[in-house]
Amino acid sequence: MAGDARRYCPLPSPFAMKRGGVVYGGNVAYETWGTLNAAHDNAILVLTGLSPSAHLTANEADPSPGWWQDMAGPGKAIDTTRWFLVCVNSLGSDKGSTGPASIDPATGEPYRLSFPELALEDVANAAHAVIRSLGIERLACLVGCSMGGMSALAYMLLHPGSVRAHISVDTAPQAQPFAIAIRSLQREAIRLDPRWNDGGYSDASYPEIGMSLARKLGVITYRSAMEWNGRFARIRLDPEQRDDEPFAREFKVESYLEGHARRFVRHFDPNCYLYLSRASDWFDIAEYGGGSVRAGLLRIRIERALVIGVSTDILFPLQQQEQIADGLREAGAHVDFVALDSPQGHDAFLVDIPNYSRAIGDFLLTLRNT
Amino acid sequence: MAGDARRYCPLPSPFAMKRGGVVYGGNVAYETWGTLNAAHDNAILVLTGLSPSAHLTANEADPSPGWWQDMAGPGKAIDTTRWFLVCVNSLGSDKGSTGPASIDPATGEPYRLSFPELALEDVANAAHAVIRSLGIERLACLVGCSMGGMSALAYMLLHPGSVRAHISVDTAPQAQPFAIAIRSLQREAIRLDPRWNDGGYSDASYPEIGMSLARKLGVITYRSAMEWNGRFARIRLDPEQRDDEPFAREFKVESYLEGHARRFVRHFDPNCYLYLSRASDWFDIAEYGGGSVRAGLLRIRIERALVIGVSTDILFPLQQQEQIADGLREAGAHVDFVALDSPQGHDAFLVDIPNYSRAIGDFLLTLRNT
Repeated sequence: MAGDARRYCPLPSPFAMKRGGVVYGGNVAYETWGTLNAAHDNAILVLTGLSPSAHLTANEADPSPGWWQDMAGPGKAIDTTRWFLVCVNSLGSDKGSTGPASIDPATGEPYRLSFPELALEDVANAAHAVIRSLGIERLACLVGCSMGGMSALAYMLLHPGSVRAHISVDTAPQAQPFAIAIRSLQREAIRLDPRWNDGGYSDASYPEIGMSLARKLGVITYRSAMEWNGRFARIRLDPEQRDDEPFAREFKVESYLEGHARRFVRHFDPNCYLYLSRASDWFDIAEYGGGSVRAGLLRIRIERALVIGVSTDILFPLQQQEQIADGLREAGAHVDFVALDSPQGHDAFLVDIPNYSRAIGDFLLTLRNT
Repeated sequence: MAGDARRYCPLPSPFAMKRGGVVYGGNVAYETWGTLNAAHDNAILVLTGLSPSAHLTANEADPSPGWWQDMAGPGKAIDTTRWFLVCVNSLGSDKGSTGPASIDPATGEPYRLSFPELALEDVANAAHAVIRSLGIERLACLVGCSMGGMSALAYMLLHPGSVRAHISVDTAPQAQPFAIAIRSLQREAIRLDPRWNDGGYSDASYPEIGMSLARKLGVITYRSAMEWNGRFARIRLDPEQRDDEPFAREFKVESYLEGHARRFVRHFDPNCYLYLSRASDWFDIAEYGGGSVRAGLLRIRIERALVIGVSTDILFPLQQQEQIADGLREAGAHVDFVALDSPQGHDAFLVDIPNYSRAIGDFLLTLRNT
């Protein structure tokens, strides 16, 4: 089955959402790499951060580089000659899965804010539907990165017995107030842009300013001060790169942020962004443990786990990965905890491929041998 | 002289600015506490962060609490029965000193963006003019907090021999890219608010949204994730405290930010904010050391210094205070370095009064005894 590009899995219709409301005729977009074996026990599912599509790495039908291009493929850490790799686009996103930017079959118009409230539990349930549609009862490994790590915890809680091993990457068992504050401000930048228009924007009148501010704030919190000291220091732009307006960009770090914003704005739907951002705030594994994160984690029954975090992450601090590792271990799993000192902050999993690749590759090799 | 309220010191006219341009008929607002002794050697000058006025603590003419109310006064760490305390409002601010919100005598209209480019060196020179106008040749101690710490470094470099001892609080010898990125985004939020109107806003059409976003981002970076975990955790607002709009504030941390923004917006002039913010980015003591921070600090000749920083500060990280302490020590000063673990982040100097007060009080007592 190598070389599949984006496919669509129809969701049960109606598809009931955690916080109320249903979705009719929903779909989840996904891509696969490698071949599902006869025992159907070599499947790895990856749940993504807020913005990536299901295109994790290149395949025949879509040879463009994926968002984790160097992590998966033949001979790579997630070796697609051995594993059947699946990556789904989150429910609520706009990269093929149903979400606020999709057409509501009841009206023929985009849902926009009439889309039901979205929780990461819904993202998890939608991903589980994809896995079942592929004839897989039990994943060999469930990988979750950033927001996807929270979705993965929801997946294991809501579908006991559906996962053998878990890889948790730069994530958290619940949103803490610092992360909520950052995301709240990102949403506010979008909502206060008059062109957001209560979700009723168009291509011609798009909340570009709000999305740009939100993305820049995202990038600031996804990276680390330490990395930037080495990378940008106080380097100025050349005079010909500067605009002539007051307070225009002058430092290289400012133009770096601008570049990130330009590559994001108009490539992600603002309403989808708001839904997924709020869903991230809402997630709290303590809901499954009578108010205790530890008790919530204790309900997860898996055989093995690899929990990775990075000391420079200000959005999902290392202590939160420790919490996950400790809880899963106490629940009976054999847990490897890897604390990296990569300078790149939260985004290290996308950038420091050598270290993440080694940790994930070694863990998956061990899985094969048990 | 106890009980003085805001006074004004006329600046030399024209007053030449570091980056070009001059100010005619400028003033610096200041307040004083205590009495200057006959030898004129008991003066302490405090240079403030970006937004405070000269009203550091209550006095007879203005008994309202000041921004560092519990730090200074009779019997407090900065004991005004012994010291003659002066606090100036930064040049470029809007709390009495001349800045972009002031009337340009040449036109009878506010300067707005026609105010010359502002550097912290200008803030330092204006403060020095106040001190000279009071008949003080040499400060017993120069205190600088946050942005004011950078202004203080400029003061000591530009006016050699004018300072005996220095207290450096939560500051940096140069702006690093993370701080520049944050401030750039704050400025962008203001500049992209259509009501900013290239600096031509009015009370009736004021860039409230931009100022609110800028302030919230400020508060996020002035505090720390650790503090908020203890203080807000995931506490929700009561339903009656919530607005009925989509993505409305739901968590207590969100309403905390909103409260801060409401207390700031319309109490600080947006153009002044932009000028002072950019001045903070520009400051770099390495300019005085042929590109080296260390060499710049080596040019500062003082007798004693106390350098305080806090491990939870993400805007002015502790390593930057270590740099200052090391440089001043190498330059020949006797330096006390105090690294605090206050949970409140950069704002700890305004909140953790017990620890800051002890460090500053002890240092000033030692000064008296030498």
